[in-house]
Amino acid sequence: MIEITFRPMSVFQSDITLCHSEVVWGETHFSLHLFTATPTEEMNGAGNLMDFLDEPLPDVGTYEDFHTIDWLREKSRDTDRHRKITNRSKESIWEFVKSLLDAWSGWVVMLLIGLLSGTLAGVIDLAVDWMTDLKEGVCLSAFWYSHEQCCWTSNETTFADRDKCPQWQKWAELMTGHTESAGAYVLNYFLYVLWALFFSFLAVSLVRVFAPYACGSGIPEIKTILSGFIIRGYLGKWTLLIKTVTLVLAVSSGLSLGKEGPLVHVACCCGNLFCSLFSKYSKNEGKRREVLSAAAAAGVSVAFGAPIGGVLFSLEEVSYYFPLKTLWRSFFAALVAAFTLRSINPFGNNRLVLFYVEYHTPWYMAELVPFILLGVFGGLWGTLFIRGNIAWCRRRKTTQLGKYPVLEVIVVTGITAILAFPNPYTRRSTSELISELFNDCGALESSQLCDYINNPNMSRPEDDIPDRPAGPGVYMALWQLALALIFKIVITIFTFGMKIPSGLFIPSMAVGAIAGRIVGIAVEQMAYHHHDWIIFKNWCRPGADCVTPGLYAMVGAAACLGGVTRMTVSLVVIMFELTGGLEYIVPLMAAAVTSKWVADAFGKEGIYEAHIRLNGYPYLDQDEFTHRTLATDVMRPRRNEPPLSVLTQDSTTVEDVETLIKETDYNGFPVVVSRESERLIGFVQRRDLILAIKNARQKQDGVVSNSVVYFTEDAPQLPASNPQPLKLRRILNLSPFTVTDHTPMETVVDIFRKLGLRQCLVTRSGRLLGIITKKDVLRHMAQMMNQDPESIMFN
Amino acid sequence: MIEITFRPMSVFQSDITLCHSEVVWGETHFSLHLFTATPTEEMNGAGNLMDFLDEPLPDVGTYEDFHTIDWLREKSRDTDRHRKITNRSKESIWEFVKSLLDAWSGWVVMLLIGLLSGTLAGVIDLAVDWMTDLKEGVCLSAFWYSHEQCCWTSNETTFADRDKCPQWQKWAELMTGHTESAGAYVLNYFLYVLWALFFSFLAVSLVRVFAPYACGSGIPEIKTILSGFIIRGYLGKWTLLIKTVTLVLAVSSGLSLGKEGPLVHVACCCGNLFCSLFSKYSKNEGKRREVLSAAAAAGVSVAFGAPIGGVLFSLEEVSYYFPLKTLWRSFFAALVAAFTLRSINPFGNNRLVLFYVEYHTPWYMAELVPFILLGVFGGLWGTLFIRGNIAWCRRRKTTQLGKYPVLEVIVVTGITAILAFPNPYTRRSTSELISELFNDCGALESSQLCDYINNPNMSRPEDDIPDRPAGPGVYMALWQLALALIFKIVITIFTFGMKIPSGLFIPSMAVGAIAGRIVGIAVEQMAYHHHDWIIFKNWCRPGADCVTPGLYAMVGAAACLGGVTRMTVSLVVIMFELTGGLEYIVPLMAAAVTSKWVADAFGKEGIYEAHIRLNGYPYLDQDEFTHRTLATDVMRPRRNEPPLSVLTQDSTTVEDVETLIKETDYNGFPVVVSRESERLIGFVQRRDLILAIKNARQKQDGVVSNSVVYFTEDAPQLPASNPQPLKLRRILNLSPFTVTDHTPMETVVDIFRKLGLRQCLVTRSGRLLGIITKKDVLRHMAQMMNQDPESIMFN
Repeated sequence: MIEITFRPMSVFQSDITLCHSEVVWGETHFSLHLFTATPTEEMNGAGNLMDFLDEPLPDVGTYEDFHTIDWLREKSRDTDRHRKITNRSKESIWEFVKSLLDAWSGWVVMLLIGLLSGTLAGVIDLAVDWMTDLKEGVCLSAFWYSHEQCCWTSNETTFADRDKCPQWQKWAELMTGHTESAGAYVLNYFLYVLWALFFSFLAVSLVRVFAPYACGSGIPEIKTILSGFIIRGYLGKWTLLIKTVTLVLAVSSGLSLGKEGPLVHVACCCGNLFCSLFSKYSKNEGKRREVLSAAAAAGVSVAFGAPIGGVLFSLEEVSYYFPLKTLWRSFFAALVAAFTLRSINPFGNNRLVLFYVEYHTPWYMAELVPFILLGVFGGLWGTLFIRGNIAWCRRRKTTQLGKYPVLEVIVVTGITAILAFPNPYTRRSTSELISELFNDCGALESSQLCDYINNPNMSRPEDDIPDRPAGPGVYMALWQLALALIFKIVITIFTFGMKIPSGLFIPSMAVGAIAGRIVGIAVEQMAYHHHDWIIFKNWCRPGADCVTPGLYAMVGAAACLGGVTRMTVSLVVIMFELTGGLEYIVPLMAAAVTSKWVADAFGKEGIYEAHIRLNGYPYLDQDEFTHRTLATDVMRPRRNEPPLSVLTQDSTTVEDVETLIKETDYNGFPVVVSRESERLIGFVQRRDLILAIKNARQKQDGVVSNSVVYFTEDAPQLPASNPQPLKLRRILNLSPFTVTDHTPMETVVDIFRKLGLRQCLVTRSGRLLGIITKKDVLRHMAQMMNQDPESIMFN
Repeated sequence: MIEITFRPMSVFQSDITLCHSEVVWGETHFSLHLFTATPTEEMNGAGNLMDFLDEPLPDVGTYEDFHTIDWLREKSRDTDRHRKITNRSKESIWEFVKSLLDAWSGWVVMLLIGLLSGTLAGVIDLAVDWMTDLKEGVCLSAFWYSHEQCCWTSNETTFADRDKCPQWQKWAELMTGHTESAGAYVLNYFLYVLWALFFSFLAVSLVRVFAPYACGSGIPEIKTILSGFIIRGYLGKWTLLIKTVTLVLAVSSGLSLGKEGPLVHVACCCGNLFCSLFSKYSKNEGKRREVLSAAAAAGVSVAFGAPIGGVLFSLEEVSYYFPLKTLWRSFFAALVAAFTLRSINPFGNNRLVLFYVEYHTPWYMAELVPFILLGVFGGLWGTLFIRGNIAWCRRRKTTQLGKYPVLEVIVVTGITAILAFPNPYTRRSTSELISELFNDCGALESSQLCDYINNPNMSRPEDDIPDRPAGPGVYMALWQLALALIFKIVITIFTFGMKIPSGLFIPSMAVGAIAGRIVGIAVEQMAYHHHDWIIFKNWCRPGADCVTPGLYAMVGAAACLGGVTRMTVSLVVIMFELTGGLEYIVPLMAAAVTSKWVADAFGKEGIYEAHIRLNGYPYLDQDEFTHRTLATDVMRPRRNEPPLSVLTQDSTTVEDVETLIKETDYNGFPVVVSRESERLIGFVQRRDLILAIKNARQKQDGVVSNSVVYFTEDAPQLPASNPQPLKLRRILNLSPFTVTDHTPMETVVDIFRKLGLRQCLVTRSGRLLGIITKKDVLRHMAQMMNQDPESIMFN
């Protein structure tokens, strides 16, 4: 009698009764090479298995690519591992120290993630700064300086003059010596477009050749991975490197995209990298996902300089399984990352945040009306963007268009650069634009947007400048902003989803900030010219500073970002961290919630969910399933399908099993008492079966094709002529997850979501009827949604 | 043949096959009186049940007091309700409007909670202010003014003088005319103690007589309620009223307690109150808990003026089930509450936060050492407090002490008042003390703590005062603070848990703030006198302002609060909202995490979990269960116990069922095919059985004691002489939750926690073996913990 001695997870004893027994055979897990196995096996036929399991098995990995993980199994494996370490820690001091190190490894990983992602974000910021300016000119004193850095040492005192410091020369000036002629303008224009094309070509080529996974924002895929999907290489070292480099190129090329989403991807790659240092994380897909959730928080933390917002973003938008321990660790990683970035100080202002603003006036209740209107605009923009972008991406997937990604990038970059150069608000980088739009017009502001007509007989305090009539510069700026708004709206729809790293936080915020600033200036001028109107009377006396257009820009940015991503709390917290005051939380909240409601009225999905569905990832989202179907409607086999492939506990032969493995590609097979009674006794994994039979055939005499395989405790009574039977009880999972055929699907969906199952067996009074896998559930949910799209509108 | 036509939840069709059928009988739920049932029943014997179900059934409520709810069932009921509304909304405009109202009712409840809890918090603040000052004196111009309000209109310009405005008179001054004599001091002392005793006597009497549930902080009970336990009246109107009134009295009496925890309880009472307005929430215990989670966030939001911190507190510390929808709503409620409070403006400073601080100097890396030491102190204090307080509470529960709650309160108040009066730092209210300790010494500060020796030949800028040597006032203050520290540490241990409303946030913060300020002043003086030491050399030149003792107080407060409650992220966020800057997040985080680690080394439980365990509430906490037991070790019946009480599907008589109901008090009974095969087919609730049989006996002829009860689709074949059988299939839950006997307990615990089950059946290959209830799980976890307390130390 031969017995295969490794066991699948979550079956702790094949023989029950003893439950605190410390026998070692109960703990040798084949997929856990962390601890060298100690085969003090008291049963026969063990030992030699260990050698076999140390062999590399490329074709039968724990999880295959594009498969779903079993959360319960992973958790159970980790508990086993942890129990083992705890038991060992009592044996010696060294083991105790090892157990302490193990307990602290989570914090160490967080520290490393924070340090690396902060550093990378700093490097990216510096490089983007330099390369964006390189499109316009070069620093003569040191070519690696950006425009701002180049002119820091300049002697000019005012901001306007300092911008024109002699060390910095535009390309035309450098080449021809002229600065203001039409020829110089054309030359500058031409070189601007050329540089943009060069950067974007380089970016798309690098992505194509070295790391196809480095394209896009990465957030839809990270959401899917965190929900328990395996995408090999998506968070690999190569992706990390290429995404970092191409992100710089893509942002510098002036395309309408941001670095925030890709930074989350980069941070998750860092997280994955450091996971490989600790077998606790590298060998357990569930634990790995805890680290990745925290890394996502660190990514947003460095993208905006908002650690709390980052944690909430990870919680609200990205993560699937977020225990409290992850909350603390995420916060730690986010803080370390933010402070690493601050130490690098890429913005040169010692500030943590991307857009630092300081307003001097409070807001008034009446202003809620324009704020809510901005919310409506944000919701409409979100709907337009999602529909347009998804339609375009679908077209790219299904038509010839998708075959020329490099050409597509080149064409879009060309159009962007050609249209962007003439307008000063689109020529500069989008984050600079947002920064200017958010700013309040101070006394020293030289921007066109602050070209108000000053009252000559008015004293000028430093901060509190009253509302003034707009000058010609402001009207000019309004026109240019309106054109920039249309341009950004259109081009962003076509840009997001191309084969280069591209985030949509910044373009969305830009759209909102432009719209908001326009509304803000309009309200301000209305309040100035009509301060006797009843709505302005109460709060806006002449000579008072009552409207802050910059605040409108910020509210608009929040509304548009909310409309696209549908996040609310984390968005408000990010904005609140940017301004550093609770003062403006009500306007932001009003706009964000309005925008979410308006956008939800046209469709529940945010852009990330839409892309997940477009790409067909198996993502089980948090929406409630409200249909009245039962497990029996979803399980396979369906009515006219062949019966389920099952094994019997003591009458299948080795050959039968091998045929079954060859003919089907199921992950595992239920084991029943007999084909007649169909009473379920367990579930066996395909991988384990292959391993066990391969091993028995190679190493054990007497196992031939017509040997009977049995899963019971004792060998079945067989005629003496039969070959030696093969005992496989140890690979049998004796606690498969079951539901009855009458279980409502909403409960089944809940179970799959909350317990992270891979499959679930369907029984009726103990008799096996069928199986439901995660993909069956997803398919059923998609069917139901298409049948009756309205029923999920309100909940 | 008689058929009872109501059905339990989560069994949508007794006959499967049709799954999208819209037959109405499938939707009449007995426990949902929201919609009048429309019995267009196509089967026989329906109709008359509806009248019966409208009768009040006091003895068979959906859930009894001190029972656990079934989350899956509640969720399923809500989905049914929602589905019904959605279907109806297509019928007419009016139904559509109703469905919209239903969808928005959640936000309306949040708005109401925010408004009421903000208002109550404002009223409590004002009343506490007035009554605290009443212990010392009275305002002559208007007796309902507090000291500060009384002197607002005073003409004195400096703060010190304004404090001594003529309108405000101490009791001795008013009665005898003297202010400074020894007699006046004694008289003031006597009246101070007398008022304190009066307030606390009133508080404890009100609690005793009217609302016993109003005592304590309420957070342990709210945690338990949110996890799915029923405590009738704990969140009732009466509790709300009495808790609000007695909270004012208890805080004013000068006892070492705070109002933060009780404010959470008050907010949850508001939440419960408004739930009763909407049947969506009042009839569904699961939905009600979503509202209560948000109300808890609103409570913390008004306690500290920290809406984001409040939401995180609810998420990290209080809530059990926290879907994203609740996150948004909590945030909304917290914001509304905070702004309502700000509109009331009880602190008179237009600030939202309880302790507003503004520091002018950054912190230096070297200061992390004292910050971490404060963290260690906080951890030690947390351990001492939890152990001491739990020991004292256990003594109170088990000895004669517990029988004299009024006397206990009187004695503790007396001791507190007598010891507190002589020391100026304990005489005032604890929040004022914390406020002073947090404050940086500005130029205008007149407090004893700011009595530094000024360098006469130094210019004095407004904000940036360099470090100076301490004057005699500071040394005096140090001694008094040290005494206050010892006093607070001891008295708080005895105060928390008395029969009056008592929070521990403020006392814990006070302990930490005192310790922190002492350390801060020590470091400051060391830096001043030894600025040539190597550690100070780099960052502390003479004449520079390098150490902020107020920051140390804040860090200490965070550390001590963290040690007691073990919350980290929400604590740091609350502190960050208090200071309004990211600048000090690293010191706070360092102290909070250190304090948590130190305290965790001595025991995993925070004070709330410890009180939950002390009171024996059935709370399934988030800690991981790491033992190797199996379901078979936990399930009942145990080896030597009588077999499980089951019903058979077609051979039990009405009399048997009635006997079973009389003799046992189980919540429900499994139904099996027959006693021989023991194959499980479903589960029937006790309540439904009682109702069905009572109804059949009253309304239906032919049902007598020896009628057979059957749960199958068709009636069993019985001899003609037998009385008419009773069909009960409709009350049978055909999808009971099952696990196999081999399932590891860690999986079972996970299932109970994540799905919120009440019970779970244990089977082996379809044969029923036993049952596991939530209480069995809790009992088993407690047993395991006591067996092996060390194994849960690291994870």
